[in-house]
Amino acid sequence: MRYYPTPEAGLDLREVNRAVEEAFAEHGRGKVQMPPKVYINFEHGDFRTMPGYIPSLNTAGVKVVNVHPENPKSGLPTVMALTVLLSVENGIPEAILNATRLTDMRTGAAGAVAAKYLSPSDEITLGVVGSGRQAGAQVEAIAQELRIRKILVWSRKEQNSLAFCGKYSRFDCESVSLERVCDANVVVTTTPSRKPLIRDEWIHEGTHINAIGADAPGKEELDPGILSRGTVFVDDPAQAVHSGEINVPIREGSFTVESIRGTLGEVILGKAGRKGNEEITIFDSTGLAIQDLAIAGIAVKNGECINLKFP
Amino acid sequence: MRYYPTPEAGLDLREVNRAVEEAFAEHGRGKVQMPPKVYINFEHGDFRTMPGYIPSLNTAGVKVVNVHPENPKSGLPTVMALTVLLSVENGIPEAILNATRLTDMRTGAAGAVAAKYLSPSDEITLGVVGSGRQAGAQVEAIAQELRIRKILVWSRKEQNSLAFCGKYSRFDCESVSLERVCDANVVVTTTPSRKPLIRDEWIHEGTHINAIGADAPGKEELDPGILSRGTVFVDDPAQAVHSGEINVPIREGSFTVESIRGTLGEVILGKAGRKGNEEITIFDSTGLAIQDLAIAGIAVKNGECINLKFP
Repeated sequence: MRYYPTPEAGLDLREVNRAVEEAFAEHGRGKVQMPPKVYINFEHGDFRTMPGYIPSLNTAGVKVVNVHPENPKSGLPTVMALTVLLSVENGIPEAILNATRLTDMRTGAAGAVAAKYLSPSDEITLGVVGSGRQAGAQVEAIAQELRIRKILVWSRKEQNSLAFCGKYSRFDCESVSLERVCDANVVVTTTPSRKPLIRDEWIHEGTHINAIGADAPGKEELDPGILSRGTVFVDDPAQAVHSGEINVPIREGSFTVESIRGTLGEVILGKAGRKGNEEITIFDSTGLAIQDLAIAGIAVKNGECINLKFP
Repeated sequence: MRYYPTPEAGLDLREVNRAVEEAFAEHGRGKVQMPPKVYINFEHGDFRTMPGYIPSLNTAGVKVVNVHPENPKSGLPTVMALTVLLSVENGIPEAILNATRLTDMRTGAAGAVAAKYLSPSDEITLGVVGSGRQAGAQVEAIAQELRIRKILVWSRKEQNSLAFCGKYSRFDCESVSLERVCDANVVVTTTPSRKPLIRDEWIHEGTHINAIGADAPGKEELDPGILSRGTVFVDDPAQAVHSGEINVPIREGSFTVESIRGTLGEVILGKAGRKGNEEITIFDSTGLAIQDLAIAGIAVKNGECINLKFP
């Protein structure tokens, strides 16, 4: 059994995107095993257990991930994750990975795959809402799939969006208003907002949106009018209804499960997709166990590790 | 984060029994969180994810355990387990334990707690069906709770039961026929049998039975007549119906869910129990996540470990 303390180091992002794309395609074919996330609730947070198996990648295991919103007060991340990979052939735990950064990256990879298939163009201006870890992960992963001519970024604190521009200056990055971010061809939203930030009238025809931030009941970033006007794709319908961008609009009756056009897996398989240059497309990402397993399967190939005695 | 390669070394079995008893008592009070085990199925086996939280022990985490019946051909155990303990306060993974031996011991502890409350007497002859790891775990755990005057052991291969007697010679251990094992006051069955081994007419009035072996659909060790004549307690009703000693009789209609007298937790709380010296009592053990967490919580207190970089 091996432990990988920094499995994100040196990962080939393009290879990660391909593994995550393969996982979603297999999900679209109905060939993965992925039971619903299981929640354990604490007074100050929770943890989720996410098991899965992707036969085509010969990869199986489980991610354990917490959410403790008060952690930053004591210097710890809100979200920390550990992934255990098991041998399909004999069930032995083969690898344990510190999966905190991998979780950001696999979410970035899902956004990149969605943008690859749903972007109105291969050469884009990328709008980024929020400037945290996930904002960066989206930029880096999408840059593997599309040519980013310019980035328009907004953050609640301008100093953060300016720092973001410094980090991503190679993309001609500009700190702008929230409305102006929406002038981009592809917009990614990465905030923990609990009320819509993006107004319907700001979104132009033909835009693709990766709605990343909403990952728990009560969270939403987009005016529900955007969902009605556009076409919604999800990673997994059950998870999206429970905790994705569509969770509040569905509860409030302004969106219905039947309105989901398809899953990202179905998009990859060509069973669903963008219809013309004027359509607004939205990818509602909640994060699937199979993404965690796909990236872990890549990370253990070359990552630095230490050997642990087992059994 | 710490890794414990041999957390079973030096464990105080009496302390383990008390922690497992506390976990079952809290289960009886409805004060633990324990979602159903989640199964992932492979061609040659499966693995189960078992999360849980015992607030009174401030212990939370998840056990990941495989079952690959063909493993012994290649020198690996059929069952291997890993437990991850998380901080209740901030969700960080605090400890990872090699839980293969702990799994045997926590099952032994459940049997010991059941025998403590349901044995017809504090001084017993112990009948042991099977002579493998679980047979030994039952003897060692029960010896912490009751005075074992004599052991009667049966194994399909007599050389195994003789070796068992050599190992447990301090208990006046005798290798006997299957029928003769049933002359004991407390009988533990620990085989992977898929048809009843123990005949109804062999079991005397007043006997307590720990039915340990059946832990998957299709497995059974006892003539269903014993269940009808006696009183059945379970660790967890849902798991027992799915995979415990009662699973086949329920499917075949010779036993009903309504006939379950209570859980081990309820027995500990005095809400259910043995009614007089003539009653036959059966504890149907399937193995709960809270047992794994309780023993892990003990094991990390003094066990040898190595430190791993996280996060």
